[in-house]
Amino acid sequence: MYYIGIDLGGTKIAAGIVDEEGTIIKKDSVPTGRTRKNEEIVNDICMLVKKLLNDTNLSEKDIYSVGIGSPGSLDRDQGIIIANFNLSFRYVTIRKAIQEVIPVPVYVENDANCAAIAESIAGVGKGVDYMVLITIGTGIGGGIIINNKLYIGSNGAAAELGHMVINLDGESCTCGRKGCWEAYSSATAFIRQTKAAAADNPESKILELVDGDMEKIDAKTAFDAARMGDETAINVVDRYIDILAEGLANMVNIFQPDLIAIGGGVSKEGENLLAPLREKMKGRTFFIGDLKNTQIVAAKMRNDAGIVGAALISKRM
Amino acid sequence: MYYIGIDLGGTKIAAGIVDEEGTIIKKDSVPTGRTRKNEEIVNDICMLVKKLLNDTNLSEKDIYSVGIGSPGSLDRDQGIIIANFNLSFRYVTIRKAIQEVIPVPVYVENDANCAAIAESIAGVGKGVDYMVLITIGTGIGGGIIINNKLYIGSNGAAAELGHMVINLDGESCTCGRKGCWEAYSSATAFIRQTKAAAADNPESKILELVDGDMEKIDAKTAFDAARMGDETAINVVDRYIDILAEGLANMVNIFQPDLIAIGGGVSKEGENLLAPLREKMKGRTFFIGDLKNTQIVAAKMRNDAGIVGAALISKRM
Repeated sequence: MYYIGIDLGGTKIAAGIVDEEGTIIKKDSVPTGRTRKNEEIVNDICMLVKKLLNDTNLSEKDIYSVGIGSPGSLDRDQGIIIANFNLSFRYVTIRKAIQEVIPVPVYVENDANCAAIAESIAGVGKGVDYMVLITIGTGIGGGIIINNKLYIGSNGAAAELGHMVINLDGESCTCGRKGCWEAYSSATAFIRQTKAAAADNPESKILELVDGDMEKIDAKTAFDAARMGDETAINVVDRYIDILAEGLANMVNIFQPDLIAIGGGVSKEGENLLAPLREKMKGRTFFIGDLKNTQIVAAKMRNDAGIVGAALISKRM
Repeated sequence: MYYIGIDLGGTKIAAGIVDEEGTIIKKDSVPTGRTRKNEEIVNDICMLVKKLLNDTNLSEKDIYSVGIGSPGSLDRDQGIIIANFNLSFRYVTIRKAIQEVIPVPVYVENDANCAAIAESIAGVGKGVDYMVLITIGTGIGGGIIINNKLYIGSNGAAAELGHMVINLDGESCTCGRKGCWEAYSSATAFIRQTKAAAADNPESKILELVDGDMEKIDAKTAFDAARMGDETAINVVDRYIDILAEGLANMVNIFQPDLIAIGGGVSKEGENLLAPLREKMKGRTFFIGDLKNTQIVAAKMRNDAGIVGAALISKRM
């Protein structure tokens, strides 16, 4: 049997047909066109599903289920995307629309949770019962696997791990609180920190790397400048990793998972990020004697996480 | 069938016989004598078990299991208390000792987890699948119930909820980190905050209430002075509740449990604590639309939590 996964992103709608193990056998995408009407986007999703079935010569009897990963607010029972804040999407009865194309079970799930499912089934969390996934992007997304199942809490809205205050009266967060982890450790925050350091230290390599254009600074710039030995960049990266380590140590003290997977663009730095991160976490996680320590690793499903996780939602519910 | 629960505290060893519903039918205690040798304490525990059986005319065929709640580090598989930092207890094979008195299954569990089990079975968490218990005492203890089972993580050491940093580079914590929730919201921290405010404001009612003796200030003093309208005390209590609310809002964003139960001495303030706490949490928990909100309530098992939770460990594993 096969599974269809749809990743409803802000810039593109990606969909794929996935096997039991989480391997994508065919994928496709269309631009989201975020200002378009609900119906146009829903039509494109249905069209993508039809096209995938045509291209693979598969039919409804080969497909176990369809899943859609979306940020924002969802009604899992009714199969409705209540609000995707990246789009103008509101109260979209996506299950109903898809079932008109293919009458199989249709699941909706939060995109960060889909990424956790993907890592759990086909990524770094394979074979592990307890995993926390942190996605470092515009914000900090979280997904929690407990006893090999997705943890969604009593109301389905759990795992907003980025919205854990780690600094009282600290940086303002998009959620309205002050001092959330996300306000320090998201890629957005890291870029802001890099820009501020570059402005304060115009002689640093940071500005040189972006030809003096502050707006070109991204989440890689400080790492690149640090690799060139630039003192300002080294300090920015060090402080960034330091605070990220505080949040991750909190996750360990709360969950003691087998592993924490770190996804999102920043995680592409690999050991440049992970080695100092693990070092800084030492002594911050609660004393557990000879017990097994949580592994800190980079997520590996990358851009496919959304499709694979959405496709296999039912395997982790 | 009945269950025996033993609460190994720093000042007394309490034990009781408990029924299926968590009602204590007989209990007893002896002073711990924390400087005594392992064997003397183990002997007292065994003696207490024998005495309870004698007093109730019950025998091994009436007892389903024995449980021991202890702070510190445990080996659940082997039934060993590795270290109870309140006592000089190290590597005590307590299961073996108790099974010489009564050959039934013997469980060991962390004391904060026992308190969570007690609330889940016989207290405010009855009938609820997802609960977080916070015990405000010398430190901040945590216990997590997920799907009606105790959550202990991959290595058994999860739920150190007090050791979540909520203030970067903040107050020093006993665990070695800076800015842990416990360093702000434990009873110890609250007393420290009350003393500091009293020292800075010698005209406040706080010092009056303790006859000018700073050392008599406890976790109730500031609440008492605030009730008398004392401005200094009102501010201390307000700031204390404010930071407690930040930590609890973190718990909601992470777990979205049905309820959070607050135990320990400070929780005896009841609505004086809970009403402003709930008010301050508004807007700090992540937007969940029309979804069900986490209830914030006082724990109700009080001093019996340790016995009842230890007795019924097997029901939440």
